[in-house]
Amino acid sequence: MQQFGVIGLSVMGKNLALNVKNHGYSVSGFSIDKPEVDALAKYEDKDLKPTYTWEEFVNSLEKPRKILIQIMAGKPVDETLQKLLPLLDKGDILIDGGNSNFHDTNRRYEEMEKHGIHFIGMGVSGGEEGALNGPALMPGGDEKAYEEVSPILEAMAAKTPTGQPCVGYIGPAGSGHYVKMVHNGIEYGIMQIISEVYDVLRTVGHYSNDEMSEIFKNWDKGALQAYLIEITAKVLKQKDNLTDDHIIDHILNEASYKGTGNWMLEDAIRLGAPITVIAEAVLARFMSKATLRDDPEPKIDPEKAPKDLVDQLAKALYLAMAVSYGQGFEQLTMAAKAYNWRLHYSTIAQNWEAGCIIRSQMLHDIKFAYNADKDLPNLFKAPFFDKVKKENISALREVVKIAADAGVPTPTLSAALNYLESIFNPRLPQNMIQGQRDYFGAHTYQRNDRPGTFHTEWYEEK
Amino acid sequence: MQQFGVIGLSVMGKNLALNVKNHGYSVSGFSIDKPEVDALAKYEDKDLKPTYTWEEFVNSLEKPRKILIQIMAGKPVDETLQKLLPLLDKGDILIDGGNSNFHDTNRRYEEMEKHGIHFIGMGVSGGEEGALNGPALMPGGDEKAYEEVSPILEAMAAKTPTGQPCVGYIGPAGSGHYVKMVHNGIEYGIMQIISEVYDVLRTVGHYSNDEMSEIFKNWDKGALQAYLIEITAKVLKQKDNLTDDHIIDHILNEASYKGTGNWMLEDAIRLGAPITVIAEAVLARFMSKATLRDDPEPKIDPEKAPKDLVDQLAKALYLAMAVSYGQGFEQLTMAAKAYNWRLHYSTIAQNWEAGCIIRSQMLHDIKFAYNADKDLPNLFKAPFFDKVKKENISALREVVKIAADAGVPTPTLSAALNYLESIFNPRLPQNMIQGQRDYFGAHTYQRNDRPGTFHTEWYEEK
Repeated sequence: MQQFGVIGLSVMGKNLALNVKNHGYSVSGFSIDKPEVDALAKYEDKDLKPTYTWEEFVNSLEKPRKILIQIMAGKPVDETLQKLLPLLDKGDILIDGGNSNFHDTNRRYEEMEKHGIHFIGMGVSGGEEGALNGPALMPGGDEKAYEEVSPILEAMAAKTPTGQPCVGYIGPAGSGHYVKMVHNGIEYGIMQIISEVYDVLRTVGHYSNDEMSEIFKNWDKGALQAYLIEITAKVLKQKDNLTDDHIIDHILNEASYKGTGNWMLEDAIRLGAPITVIAEAVLARFMSKATLRDDPEPKIDPEKAPKDLVDQLAKALYLAMAVSYGQGFEQLTMAAKAYNWRLHYSTIAQNWEAGCIIRSQMLHDIKFAYNADKDLPNLFKAPFFDKVKKENISALREVVKIAADAGVPTPTLSAALNYLESIFNPRLPQNMIQGQRDYFGAHTYQRNDRPGTFHTEWYEEK
Repeated sequence: MQQFGVIGLSVMGKNLALNVKNHGYSVSGFSIDKPEVDALAKYEDKDLKPTYTWEEFVNSLEKPRKILIQIMAGKPVDETLQKLLPLLDKGDILIDGGNSNFHDTNRRYEEMEKHGIHFIGMGVSGGEEGALNGPALMPGGDEKAYEEVSPILEAMAAKTPTGQPCVGYIGPAGSGHYVKMVHNGIEYGIMQIISEVYDVLRTVGHYSNDEMSEIFKNWDKGALQAYLIEITAKVLKQKDNLTDDHIIDHILNEASYKGTGNWMLEDAIRLGAPITVIAEAVLARFMSKATLRDDPEPKIDPEKAPKDLVDQLAKALYLAMAVSYGQGFEQLTMAAKAYNWRLHYSTIAQNWEAGCIIRSQMLHDIKFAYNADKDLPNLFKAPFFDKVKKENISALREVVKIAADAGVPTPTLSAALNYLESIFNPRLPQNMIQGQRDYFGAHTYQRNDRPGTFHTEWYEEK
């Protein structure tokens, strides 16, 4: 009998199966796509059992069965659950490792519970390579069931620089997939921030691709160390195989998306979460799809570039990245309250510390911040990040001004600055909005000097 | 027999009933809330008939019946339709004048069609005062049914400065309520832009409330003429009746919202519409709800204020308002395509020219722009607004820089600038995002020099 089962054997599923097997567990694999099972059979490994029917697959597993479903999110997951249900026994554990929407996971969790089946919705990040060698895992659902599968998940997960596994129980129901969705939103934010910094470097600083590659490579050695910074250096270095140029200059500048960043923004609207950097990153991808791009290219005098441009950009990038993470954790905090989940923010930061796309040195500092205060109301209320803000905000202001002068758009850098100028600001001007609303719609307002609800009979009103 | 019926007689419904009656039509009124009907009875006007039962109401109307439903959006509308259905005859016309979500209106339009009942979803803007003296009306649904009620709607609607009624057929199904939703999103945008300008005026310019009131009053006399500018002057002038101060200084600076702006952003995410100004306006209201407002107040040297601050702000405000409208029309264009509606943008601009909250001189110019080219792909592709952009963008840049220096948040002014710098920009840096996505997820990319889909085997990748 095998110890673990995987349904869906395309690249991600196959690599996760191999990963589990490589850590000493016997695995059964099944797919409704026969060639995928044949590909698994080619390994001729007794700990990697190919199965060709639902029954053969389920019956090959020791009880309670532990089954990872790694298929396309949406309807296929529901169809798979319907196929499995009559074959399973009470106490069996199903893990959905796809990019499922957390609303679906909430529903499936409840449906499976009625049948005595434990359901875990697990975010998986790290791409194909991470799946094989160590992904970041974000499992949510039944906590007792998690305890049963945790040895396997900890074995297969990526490890932090200090050796801790990038997996830990997130919380109930769809919270694991929620955390993965927030991961992807933060990813959108950081990718857009990096793109804007790249744009300022080339347009204002007139750096070549190789020079910019070196700049990012150097940044990756210090406090800015992050996977996305690291690969930016490599993307900039890469030569094209069709021309003599660098490939970056021939990639079309229209950003595609699969939508998990969009889901995060949708839920932010429901929760009232002010995730401006992530919102601007989502909308910047929309903007890049516009087909009206006929403005003349800006021409900036190289002599005008500030001498300390690279240093200013490093500081602005660092602070804007912190805002991106901070907004992600802010939405998690609001979701936990709204959905009645108890989330462990330091565990989540640790889950992201290695294996996943947004891994970075900064997540180590975020983990410490939430370790020191698990009820931190905002990342920038932690002493470390308060200092990060104070030390870098003037550079962020400078970069926004430099970009404005150069005509370089900075939707996320501006949003990061405006967020920091707003969220702790006792003098926000929204009293004007409340005054206007009371004027035209008698919507009433509150006062800053006494309790109650007020309406003004505006003179000249009629 | 009465010529028009109104269900729901709270302030909006009652005022709309009076409005129709004042234009020479006989009206029946009904409400499930008896005191509301009693209040109507007090007018003792033969053309204003109070009715106390569903039957009495329906039977008092000449056929085909023309009934305006003016009640709270959501379930109450469905309940009202269920009550009415057995009492109506084929060909009767129902108009939902509430703030219904366009998805609901789409559904109700189809349901009523099955029963041979014409359903019109109509956005109504202008508040209580507009309801009585002339609202802006945005009716969508059955076009033939619209023709039958159009004399009444045109009589009751606000009139543009040149005497045209602020009503016109919008398009099929839920398109009328969609246009109202976009109206409200633009309203969020302009209100937030004005708040930011107010914040720069007081914080950087050190103007008093009375001085700022004069500034807005002067702006309202020129190209910036707009209802929201006009009432801003009045809000700033208003004295408090509990203290000796101006009321604006005692209104709590937390902006409330009912959600129609949020709906617009939700649908923008679905459509891929880059409505950044409206998104930032929605999120700025969320930000104002944060309870961490303990930063020290900024202290800006009055000597540092640029001499031409007011002029620069006027130009920035004008251009940012244009972006707010432009993004609204951009989303309408994308919705029309996605939902297969034929929308008449000049009619929509005319509907908004008077009676509603976002009425302004600029809408007159927008109407002309769409009259000249009904398929305008973007407002700033019209010669008039291209000129507006060219003449004012350097002022918008200056204001963003002044605010950055002063620590004044400008989420919507920045978003307006970044939108204009992005949407026509041939050099957007999203090639970096596509490079990163291909690096970590083999998501492939397109090239700018040849057709096809490409993937790079990134060296050092493994």
